[in-house]
Amino acid sequence: MTLKFALLGAGRIGKVHARAIAGNPDAELAFVADPVADAARAIAEQYSCRVSTIDEIAADPTVDAVIICTPTNTHADLIEMFARAGKAIFCEKPVDLDVARAESCLKVVRDTGAKLMLGFQRRYDPHFAAVKKAISDGRIGEVEMIQIVSRDPGAPPMDYIKTSGGIFRDMTIHDFDMARFLLGEEPATVYATGSVLTDKTIEGVDYDSASVTLTTASGKHCTISNSRRATYGYDQRVEVHGSKGAVSVENQRPVTIELAAGDGFTRPPLHDFFMTRYVEAYAAEIAAFVSVLKDGASPSPSGEDGLRALKLADAALRSAKQGVVVVL
Amino acid sequence: MTLKFALLGAGRIGKVHARAIAGNPDAELAFVADPVADAARAIAEQYSCRVSTIDEIAADPTVDAVIICTPTNTHADLIEMFARAGKAIFCEKPVDLDVARAESCLKVVRDTGAKLMLGFQRRYDPHFAAVKKAISDGRIGEVEMIQIVSRDPGAPPMDYIKTSGGIFRDMTIHDFDMARFLLGEEPATVYATGSVLTDKTIEGVDYDSASVTLTTASGKHCTISNSRRATYGYDQRVEVHGSKGAVSVENQRPVTIELAAGDGFTRPPLHDFFMTRYVEAYAAEIAAFVSVLKDGASPSPSGEDGLRALKLADAALRSAKQGVVVVL
Amino acid sequence: MTLKFALLGAGRIGKVHARAIAGNPDAELAFVADPVADAARAIAEQYSCRVSTIDEIAADPTVDAVIICTPTNTHADLIEMFARAGKAIFCEKPVDLDVARAESCLKVVRDTGAKLMLGFQRRYDPHFAAVKKAISDGRIGEVEMIQIVSRDPGAPPMDYIKTSGGIFRDMTIHDFDMARFLLGEEPATVYATGSVLTDKTIEGVDYDSASVTLTTASGKHCTISNSRRATYGYDQRVEVHGSKGAVSVENQRPVTIELAAGDGFTRPPLHDFFMTRYVEAYAAEIAAFVSVLKDGASPSPSGEDGLRALKLADAALRSAKQGVVVVL
Amino acid sequence: MTLKFALLGAGRIGKVHARAIAGNPDAELAFVADPVADAARAIAEQYSCRVSTIDEIAADPTVDAVIICTPTNTHADLIEMFARAGKAIFCEKPVDLDVARAESCLKVVRDTGAKLMLGFQRRYDPHFAAVKKAISDGRIGEVEMIQIVSRDPGAPPMDYIKTSGGIFRDMTIHDFDMARFLLGEEPATVYATGSVLTDKTIEGVDYDSASVTLTTASGKHCTISNSRRATYGYDQRVEVHGSKGAVSVENQRPVTIELAAGDGFTRPPLHDFFMTRYVEAYAAEIAAFVSVLKDGASPSPSGEDGLRALKLADAALRSAKQGVVVVL
Repeated sequence: MTLKFALLGAGRIGKVHARAIAGNPDAELAFVADPVADAARAIAEQYSCRVSTIDEIAADPTVDAVIICTPTNTHADLIEMFARAGKAIFCEKPVDLDVARAESCLKVVRDTGAKLMLGFQRRYDPHFAAVKKAISDGRIGEVEMIQIVSRDPGAPPMDYIKTSGGIFRDMTIHDFDMARFLLGEEPATVYATGSVLTDKTIEGVDYDSASVTLTTASGKHCTISNSRRATYGYDQRVEVHGSKGAVSVENQRPVTIELAAGDGFTRPPLHDFFMTRYVEAYAAEIAAFVSVLKDGASPSPSGEDGLRALKLADAALRSAKQGVVVVL
Repeated sequence: MTLKFALLGAGRIGKVHARAIAGNPDAELAFVADPVADAARAIAEQYSCRVSTIDEIAADPTVDAVIICTPTNTHADLIEMFARAGKAIFCEKPVDLDVARAESCLKVVRDTGAKLMLGFQRRYDPHFAAVKKAISDGRIGEVEMIQIVSRDPGAPPMDYIKTSGGIFRDMTIHDFDMARFLLGEEPATVYATGSVLTDKTIEGVDYDSASVTLTTASGKHCTISNSRRATYGYDQRVEVHGSKGAVSVENQRPVTIELAAGDGFTRPPLHDFFMTRYVEAYAAEIAAFVSVLKDGASPSPSGEDGLRALKLADAALRSAKQGVVVVL
Repeated sequence: MTLKFALLGAGRIGKVHARAIAGNPDAELAFVADPVADAARAIAEQYSCRVSTIDEIAADPTVDAVIICTPTNTHADLIEMFARAGKAIFCEKPVDLDVARAESCLKVVRDTGAKLMLGFQRRYDPHFAAVKKAISDGRIGEVEMIQIVSRDPGAPPMDYIKTSGGIFRDMTIHDFDMARFLLGEEPATVYATGSVLTDKTIEGVDYDSASVTLTTASGKHCTISNSRRATYGYDQRVEVHGSKGAVSVENQRPVTIELAAGDGFTRPPLHDFFMTRYVEAYAAEIAAFVSVLKDGASPSPSGEDGLRALKLADAALRSAKQGVVVVL
Repeated sequence: MTLKFALLGAGRIGKVHARAIAGNPDAELAFVADPVADAARAIAEQYSCRVSTIDEIAADPTVDAVIICTPTNTHADLIEMFARAGKAIFCEKPVDLDVARAESCLKVVRDTGAKLMLGFQRRYDPHFAAVKKAISDGRIGEVEMIQIVSRDPGAPPMDYIKTSGGIFRDMTIHDFDMARFLLGEEPATVYATGSVLTDKTIEGVDYDSASVTLTTASGKHCTISNSRRATYGYDQRVEVHGSKGAVSVENQRPVTIELAAGDGFTRPPLHDFFMTRYVEAYAAEIAAFVSVLKDGASPSPSGEDGLRALKLADAALRSAKQGVVVVL
């Protein structure tokens, strides 16, 4: 039986998910809704689905699941609405930028028994997933120290930054999820420091460069290094050091040739965009969500995972602002 | 306007092309034909196209192009048939294992003015294409010496080998096409040597290990190293050395992590199959064929390219059998 | 004119410097002193120099310079003694484990005008030096964020640990020097956390795993990751991220072959010892010291550099013990 | 007991061996002879040895071994002279450019029972030696196919080329020795092709670009690719493909940093000179020769190894000139 999906939000990330659904043999994109009529229509035409509204979708008994790709400030309301409507929900991160609101929303999810999966796609990237598997398989022994480097090719526009919740809630939050995913233990302390190095116009609004250290009760460490600028492309690395060895992810580039000349040996820059870097991850993420519906798998990351990452982001912001170590 | 495609042959490579056509915004898979009814039906269902017959497809004026993925010994007849029917033709290599038959077929193509493109997908792999572009852009100066290494993870079954035309016409032919593509000059001499090293049961039937050297009139060299066995995966490399530098393609692996432990630093094996290795190439190849139809681009590789690669394969076989250098 | 050197301390590192002096065309090893007579004699025989005593060496007007490789708790006294004797001094780090004692010693150095160079050999490693040069040459623009990873193959014996001053003063101090060398700006805050993960017997005595974050007044960050265990060898990396790009050092291995097989592509482990890893650095360090004497070059690292690194180590220890961010 | 060495020839390679002898704990450089008095004196001063003559050295009963670094056309005579004088002999390759002369010389060596080792230093490079060891340890199973790439940064001067015996006897001969060393079986056929691509002024005198294929009786292949020009440095690679896997040597560069910027990720060029590339090999080669004298180890490569490599060079030249496959 093919599962019927509705897509809420036909923007950039909505298109990515539409393609993933269309390419999944167990799923069918039945509806798309977006206040921007042209955007909805474009997706409807490309994937032969119907333009609809949020209310109609919630009321339609044939709809199995919704993919929420709307603006962040609508996520919690939509999650509650579709949880009550009995639909399975995949929502782009975060549930909400406010911890209290996220918690009240997740209470509704629990009370309704709805299935909710959050969009930290990096867990489904084949390379990061292989790191996780190497750890689970005992290849590096006990995890001890993790280094995460995550750098964007360039900063988003000021308008985006102002509503993003800041670098820790917008960008580092992916690294917090990855840290929890790989540490296998909750962080107990957070130290963070932030600077404005790449674009002075955001001074006072946000940081563009951040370093974070997490520690756990058993003494594991995780450091995260973020920058909103990397001239060489989208830098996404993780390295896990354990008692028996270490495992790391190499950066990805669209073309892997090497040119040798008098000035040395040069390989091309990395992907310049998260959507091309994580194209396999987005497809695998939807496949995992389909598996939640079909096979009863637990959603990973869950709403709770999203909440915990958000709390780490809040702690990091407090640490950076006040120059203190935050004990959780 | 969307181009209407018919797929002839619903086997392994047929499925690959069906997916590429379905994913191309300018193309539509309208028909599929295969003597194995189940195979045709499976593709028809997955891509919402109709099962048909070769004769109906040839007679249907709405069909713009055919993709020929049938057994090698039917290629020449089908090319002629669809050339006469006024269809554009994409045909898996080779036109025919026999040079004379390939030549007579290509005469029909010329006489009818049909558009024919051959399936040497490697030209469209983004990495090999980037090597070609680096050369065209003058990054390595004048091409001087090329090394091609091409090794399969394992040998095909004996049944396949017996009808394959032998390693030079079946496997090395891709390398001959790549050599011509990158040399920018026709080979003038061929030296080849073949051995049976990986599977003694093919002794007398075929070689499983081969080395070839091509030279051109201006003194360029190209060496090719083939093996039907590579324990570490599907080995596909090329390196071009020129007057100003060199450019090479790195091998591709599905997962790029690195594990460090007491026995060293280990990266996973390569792709183990040409279809996963060249997934991007197959899509790009069909896109190029679409562009031939829509924009009037010249087919590359053309039928003539296929013929020249075949002639090199024949020369290599003669060189290996007789222990002589063949002057073309 | 060849410079006459005396070596104080004929242990492990003393031998390294003896070889470096012997191989330097402008230097001659004239004397060696060590309370262990056999150790001194072995060096004297190998390099055709004379066994002597510290007092004789200080009194000998033909001695131009001394190399101090004695136990740490003798460094400050010996530096003062030879500064007063008018000799140039190369001393293994640190001047002293106590900041006040180091400061009083450096006052004597200043007052006597003695030339003092400290043994942070990593500055002279060709690879780290090339990173520094890339920065100085403006290749990466303004330095923004530095990651240093420094891991020993295994922990030193408990006896060593007890007198070492702890991981920050013994091991991280090299990274603090490298951080200052590359940041081009003094650290303003220090955050450090330490754990006992590899050897529970040192619990309460020292840490074996440490993470440190330094920030500067202008907002640059440097993170340091240390472990006393790395199964894959002596891990020594640095990566500097700047406004125009990034530059990093690759790890070094004695043999650079790659083995490809069914389980992947494996390169051998790294060097397993700092002395083989830094063999070129030790020779270059002595050459630089010779250049201080011959050409009047400024000693780098100076005694002041050693003191600053020590103060960072003290701050790190306080941060780790008290769970606070230390503002310098 | 320390072995007494005499160095014949104080040129470029003579200096390299003088340093290796001086650094070897079991050897002592006692004498140096060279018709250029200044060259001999320079070495005598640096290593505290005596300037002497060839006749005196041959007559001196205290001399254990000679290192012959004189011009090629003197090698055979000197080998015979010192074989008759009862000295152990290390001679730079080749014994002679003429096979018949080399054979008559080696007859004298056999008849006198002299120990003769030839200077193919590449066997002693730690990286190539590790490849050999991986094969001997059975890591790649049965050797099947070898690729050797050997490219010089630039061509030698015309004067050198004219007396060098041509690219096959001068440059490829090292690759022939490496091929034999790794194949574990004598070549049975030789195919070679040569071109003038980098410097038209040597047309008719020599080739500057060459490709060679060797096969053995059991069907193993080895291809060699040579060029007198490589803009990116001294290119020295070998890759051995076997039934269980493959092993390869990475190229060596003096500095292993990586710079990342908008145009990609760049590592510095390779060594630009064989003497810096093979510095460890030259020391290990002399150590092996010392071991021949002290421990009775068999010389490797022997005079016979040198002769066989020379015969392959002669066969390659004939193949290239006549366009035929030479059966040995």
